[in-house]
Amino acid sequence: MSAEVIDGKAFADGLLRALEDDVRAFKKEHDLVPGLAVVVVGHDPASQIYVGSKARRTVEIGMRSYEHRLEEATSEADLLALIRRLNSAPEVHGILVQLPLPPHIDDAAVLDAIAPEKDVDGFHVINAGRLATGQSALVPCTPSGCLQLLKSIHGDLAGMRALVLGRSNIVGKPMAQLLLAESCTVTIAHSRTRDLPGECRRADILVAAVGRPRMVKGDWIKPGATVIDVGINRLPAVDGGKGKIVGDVDFEEALAVAGHITPVPGGVGPMTIACLLQNTLKAARVQIG
Amino acid sequence: MSAEVIDGKAFADGLLRALEDDVRAFKKEHDLVPGLAVVVVGHDPASQIYVGSKARRTVEIGMRSYEHRLEEATSEADLLALIRRLNSAPEVHGILVQLPLPPHIDDAAVLDAIAPEKDVDGFHVINAGRLATGQSALVPCTPSGCLQLLKSIHGDLAGMRALVLGRSNIVGKPMAQLLLAESCTVTIAHSRTRDLPGECRRADILVAAVGRPRMVKGDWIKPGATVIDVGINRLPAVDGGKGKIVGDVDFEEALAVAGHITPVPGGVGPMTIACLLQNTLKAARVQIG
Repeated sequence: MSAEVIDGKAFADGLLRALEDDVRAFKKEHDLVPGLAVVVVGHDPASQIYVGSKARRTVEIGMRSYEHRLEEATSEADLLALIRRLNSAPEVHGILVQLPLPPHIDDAAVLDAIAPEKDVDGFHVINAGRLATGQSALVPCTPSGCLQLLKSIHGDLAGMRALVLGRSNIVGKPMAQLLLAESCTVTIAHSRTRDLPGECRRADILVAAVGRPRMVKGDWIKPGATVIDVGINRLPAVDGGKGKIVGDVDFEEALAVAGHITPVPGGVGPMTIACLLQNTLKAARVQIG
Repeated sequence: MSAEVIDGKAFADGLLRALEDDVRAFKKEHDLVPGLAVVVVGHDPASQIYVGSKARRTVEIGMRSYEHRLEEATSEADLLALIRRLNSAPEVHGILVQLPLPPHIDDAAVLDAIAPEKDVDGFHVINAGRLATGQSALVPCTPSGCLQLLKSIHGDLAGMRALVLGRSNIVGKPMAQLLLAESCTVTIAHSRTRDLPGECRRADILVAAVGRPRMVKGDWIKPGATVIDVGINRLPAVDGGKGKIVGDVDFEEALAVAGHITPVPGGVGPMTIACLLQNTLKAARVQIG
């Protein structure tokens, strides 16, 4: 048996096309263009690439993009002042601050300064609280993308046994909340879990988000399970190359056991930006009431 | 083998004595008496009893109690106005609104109107978000009491397999967050879970919070496990009596299998008020900075 490989790129492209239609309808109905402001501080090359690609996609689907590229030396006070301006700017419906921020800036203070209704990353404490208590929330993009992939495969997830490997605020914990809201029986496992292979082996749905290359082996997987691999790990370069990107799952081994599996790259990754733009349209809808 | 019965009453009494000392020290250091305001709307007999007993305990350990007993017909606007006054009253450090509220009042609107730093019930969305993201929070009293009982028995809970049966915002979900923060491997099970007995049987720690009398049978329990029974269910009265109070666990059966178990009544129940008063002192500490 060989698992069906989930084409996250194709699925995300489909979402973006649907979103383009939704944006067009929204503009027509409300005479308003949804706008996303992206703020990046400093010159981290990866961040610059992410921000550029987010801006391009934003414009492609018909929304406005506002890029704010600030010097590495920008003070926290200046950054907070920019956020306040964006919070009250009517043309901006979503605000994303690209992480990591320089070490002299307190990430949490900045993220909590974003108006919750414009917090398209879903990292604000109020959005975390809304998600945790089953209220409508802006949900972090990566787990939201994982959930959409899972629902595209299984439809109703109720009663399925889901294991989330990793307990970060950005992926693991919100992923567990989303799966619980879908009425899965949810287990959260992590570095202190005893018998991690055994816990994984019970799962109909296995979401790996620990950031350890190829940690999940083939014999950790229940035959036929759906495996969602959130990891993006760069292996050391050999022969002067760039170093291969691999997930948290040993893909070759898992392929022989799983029912469905996301590849890395090309699985969860492309979904994240689509979910960011979904959140921006959702935020615009909420803001116009 | 017969399980050790956890005496929640005795444990809570110990907490209250310790808290009395802490309150005395706090008053001496800050020349300030912590104050708890309790608001009850209408004439539900059980609510009246709870509020009276909370007020008495508050005064017993040296704090001030402010009781607000409002007419059933009180409007939501009037209740919200009272909350605003209490939010800005410097002598009030904790605010508790007794549930249930009359049907013409929106519970969620009232609970979210309480200043998060005075929200000693831990039901405000900001406290739920702080708990969900591992920040310091005012935590709901019942799960906080359960956790303290568990730590009194086991000390370090890291790596233990915990199963939380029930996913309410008041008990199940915050309980799961607390156990995860203690590095348990946490599973949340509920009405849609397949093979509930089998899931329960894997747990070193089993917290039952579903509100179904004696649902958890002896053969659902792992031999030696610690069972925390949050349920308070009144059985139909026989022979004109009042009807017996039982938990979510079949106590007699469980006694023969578990390692430790809380009785109902006298287990988790008495802990809740002690945790409420702990939260009030904690809130006072935060408010004076």
